[in-house]
Amino acid sequence: MKNIIISDPTLRDGNHAVGHQLSVEQVKIYAKAANAANVPILEVGHGNGIGASSLQVGLAKESDIDLLEAAKSQLTTTKLGIHCIPGFATIERDLKLALDIGVDVYRIASHVTEADVTKKHISFVRERGKEVYGVLMMSHMAGIETLVSEALKMESYGAEGVVIMDSAGAYLPQDVKKRVTALRTALNGHVGFHGHNNLGMGVANSLVAAECGATILDGTARAFGAGAGNTQLEVLIAVLEKSGYSTGVDLYKILDAGDIAEEYLIDVIPSVKSTSIASGMAGVFSGFIRHIDRVSISYGVDPRDVLFRLGKRGVVAGQEDIIIEVAQEIAEQQGKTK
Amino acid sequence: MKNIIISDPTLRDGNHAVGHQLSVEQVKIYAKAANAANVPILEVGHGNGIGASSLQVGLAKESDIDLLEAAKSQLTTTKLGIHCIPGFATIERDLKLALDIGVDVYRIASHVTEADVTKKHISFVRERGKEVYGVLMMSHMAGIETLVSEALKMESYGAEGVVIMDSAGAYLPQDVKKRVTALRTALNGHVGFHGHNNLGMGVANSLVAAECGATILDGTARAFGAGAGNTQLEVLIAVLEKSGYSTGVDLYKILDAGDIAEEYLIDVIPSVKSTSIASGMAGVFSGFIRHIDRVSISYGVDPRDVLFRLGKRGVVAGQEDIIIEVAQEIAEQQGKTK
Repeated sequence: MKNIIISDPTLRDGNHAVGHQLSVEQVKIYAKAANAANVPILEVGHGNGIGASSLQVGLAKESDIDLLEAAKSQLTTTKLGIHCIPGFATIERDLKLALDIGVDVYRIASHVTEADVTKKHISFVRERGKEVYGVLMMSHMAGIETLVSEALKMESYGAEGVVIMDSAGAYLPQDVKKRVTALRTALNGHVGFHGHNNLGMGVANSLVAAECGATILDGTARAFGAGAGNTQLEVLIAVLEKSGYSTGVDLYKILDAGDIAEEYLIDVIPSVKSTSIASGMAGVFSGFIRHIDRVSISYGVDPRDVLFRLGKRGVVAGQEDIIIEVAQEIAEQQGKTK
Repeated sequence: MKNIIISDPTLRDGNHAVGHQLSVEQVKIYAKAANAANVPILEVGHGNGIGASSLQVGLAKESDIDLLEAAKSQLTTTKLGIHCIPGFATIERDLKLALDIGVDVYRIASHVTEADVTKKHISFVRERGKEVYGVLMMSHMAGIETLVSEALKMESYGAEGVVIMDSAGAYLPQDVKKRVTALRTALNGHVGFHGHNNLGMGVANSLVAAECGATILDGTARAFGAGAGNTQLEVLIAVLEKSGYSTGVDLYKILDAGDIAEEYLIDVIPSVKSTSIASGMAGVFSGFIRHIDRVSISYGVDPRDVLFRLGKRGVVAGQEDIIIEVAQEIAEQQGKTK
């Protein structure tokens, strides 16, 4: 029976869905449920990872230390994990803090073409004997060759595996098959997949990833996450079990964890709406949607037009200014200048 | 470019989600949106099809004639379709009425092992020169050989194709692949697939069906339907377009139709909850879930235990009494007799 390591970012990606306002109490409630279900790794923190709380990307309700210690207090068998994006997170301030708190699993992330920026962070964690993985975000934006070479860099820095994120929910199963197969062939360590549900493929893509040799899969309770949400964890566990994979996660207790997340963490259960579908088709990061909706109203243009044009431009997180430029451009072409 | 015929049962399967209380006004609003999006077939009526409104399975708010005429009044290019289960529906009362109203597409349905009961209804419609399909419900409950032989019966009665329903949302992509491939090989006419989302696979399974030669796919706006809902139509259209299939459906306008369904038809957008997952794993019809929840509370047992035991017994719609028997049995075994 093939074994899959489940990593659960409900308390990190879910934070995106509530403007990073998860409380210490909420973290404790869900962490306890995940631990009871024997989830292997629980990822906790600001939506953009440790050290990311800021006016620009969103101030978290609680500090990193409070969030992580709250989770830690509830975990006996589940490992505590963090998402860490160099640029937001520094070694001196953030990784040292995580080590002090006793974080077990470190996932160092960059845009898919920027693995270089993870070198120091990965090495730093690896030298301290901790479990460390590389994460390639917006992975659909690179061709397979680039994807593999960036992943190999992360492995060369000391990562025990590389997780590819479908941050825009843009992949169809055939895309995942090609990419995970290529990574599985090239890498020595784990290959992981982190899905989003913009095109309704979160669970299906994760299953394909497992079939192609991925050994780490991410999912969140009730798909808690921005926009259309993530791969839904309880469904993923059921589907893996039905397909003959072993995860060690207790089915009934992970269903309970889903119920608990719905009751205590989630305002509105993620569903696939028009702008999510358009962002998945356009390959634009879901985190942009709120800005796009706002700007589109202000310029009197269709947010779907803005999304598709942003997709053609290949914009990435941090380029939010281009939304206004694109909306203005469309408004002018449609004679709606103001 | 491969062509797919989209059949949209939002105004029929969605009726399950609201206890068959869709109004004439709601039907008009959505029918207009579906017609604007150039949806090929719109299926309308009581959740269990024409003639099914009754105390036992649920009284509809509106009569069949009112529902169908309301839809018809809004359609210019979209064909009007009905779901028809012999037993609920009679030729004399219901099919003649549908012909009078001008229904274009007739889908005659039976449990997967009971195609025989559709013979008279299919022949009747065929002899009148109307478009008629066979539908095999709960199709996961038969082996592939039986599935094929039952489908062949429907074709021999005059059906232009056979649609298999994953009524319990129990299929994984590999299951769909095997079944649709076998049907594609055996049948002369269309093969269709109607998915449910209990295991999060509605859209993914439909895409696999298309890849294996299915040419009719069903989906509902925002997945409107009982429990975890159906294949989500707007997402399906996007995914088919991205995969190079032609449906004739306008992407922006079907996204609009989804928005309209959310605003005017749907109380709670379907999401995948614990009992839906358990029913998908157990292969039990989602329509049972409400009864199972009620009976389980009354006997103090876990509804998931009830679902899995019902799955082992192979219960089908109409056997609701067994729910009580099973709940009682579990309660006794757990020393919870009352």
